[in-house]
Amino acid sequence: MLLELARKRKTVRKFKKEKPPLSSIIKAIEVAKEAPSGINSQPWHFLIVENEDLKKSIREICEKKEKSFHEKLSGHFKEWLADRGITWEKPFLSDAPYLVIVLCDKTLPFSKESVWISVGYLLLALEEMGLGTVTYTPSGSEELMELLKIPEKFRIETILPVGYSDDDKKKEKRKKVEEIVSFERFGGRSS
Amino acid sequence: MLLELARKRKTVRKFKKEKPPLSSIIKAIEVAKEAPSGINSQPWHFLIVENEDLKKSIREICEKKEKSFHEKLSGHFKEWLADRGITWEKPFLSDAPYLVIVLCDKTLPFSKESVWISVGYLLLALEEMGLGTVTYTPSGSEELMELLKIPEKFRIETILPVGYSDDDKKKEKRKKVEEIVSFERFGGRSS
Repeated sequence: MLLELARKRKTVRKFKKEKPPLSSIIKAIEVAKEAPSGINSQPWHFLIVENEDLKKSIREICEKKEKSFHEKLSGHFKEWLADRGITWEKPFLSDAPYLVIVLCDKTLPFSKESVWISVGYLLLALEEMGLGTVTYTPSGSEELMELLKIPEKFRIETILPVGYSDDDKKKEKRKKVEEIVSFERFGGRSS
Repeated sequence: MLLELARKRKTVRKFKKEKPPLSSIIKAIEVAKEAPSGINSQPWHFLIVENEDLKKSIREICEKKEKSFHEKLSGHFKEWLADRGITWEKPFLSDAPYLVIVLCDKTLPFSKESVWISVGYLLLALEEMGLGTVTYTPSGSEELMELLKIPEKFRIETILPVGYSDDDKKKEKRKKVEEIVSFERFGGRSS
């Protein structure tokens, strides 16, 4: 069952205007918060933004950072993005009906690892709810922290634009399991 | 469905001697490898260890590091561990029928984040297969890297002992969703 869900899930960068019920997002967060964490500290916080003006401000702040980030890019990373038409523009930050901003309490042990486990849970749960998203990571977040009144002990780990998919791009291919599994020692084959 | 699975899943530190089929672990990794990753670089590698001597060596190396780690502990972290009887001893590293060592290619963009999303997928998939685990993070890994012939570009993110649960400890409680969700700005309530 989970295999089917995980295989179906793909990154979504374009969203329909139609707004999903907020309850679907809350249900997905109910799943995410079941993730394990270092000494059960539950270092995550989920900030849901729906306000149009606020989303626009977030987009503006992020795109400003993206411009200078993209100017510095080179090599495989640059090519990969160019091939997919990914530029400094992030329309999904204002077009998606919701932004779910995932925060991590930096002061807690293994907090980054724990938060990303919960993001893994959240991605699958959103898929189950019929919702698409992409794990967008802003390049700098001081201005966002201020705009959104986020206390200093937190770090913005990712911004998830969430909505119904309007993205017909196919899922990127995954390696075969044989390519990413070793037995006993690195590179070891199954006997 | 996912909510039920996520709620049921708890950390397991004690395992039955009975060995689950290797195919169950491979199936769970089939789920984990569907996770998204920065520029689809799939920075994960899963090293499955079954050999008894190798597991014992891994345990010895880890416990040596744990001893000095535990000596330095203080405050809430120390108390939390003591309350649960968690010491420098890590019997699950040799008692679990399998160790799944999760590696992260440090040279790839957003690799740590991506690997932990895939760990999130993996934990749920193992649960679905009826298998228990705990995300154990060794304090230092030079010796393990050498023992297991792991190339330098990788980092050991976590060691997952995997098997049938023999752990009757209850799941640690989670906060209520209202405590970990804000609307529009940090601390904002739903209108």
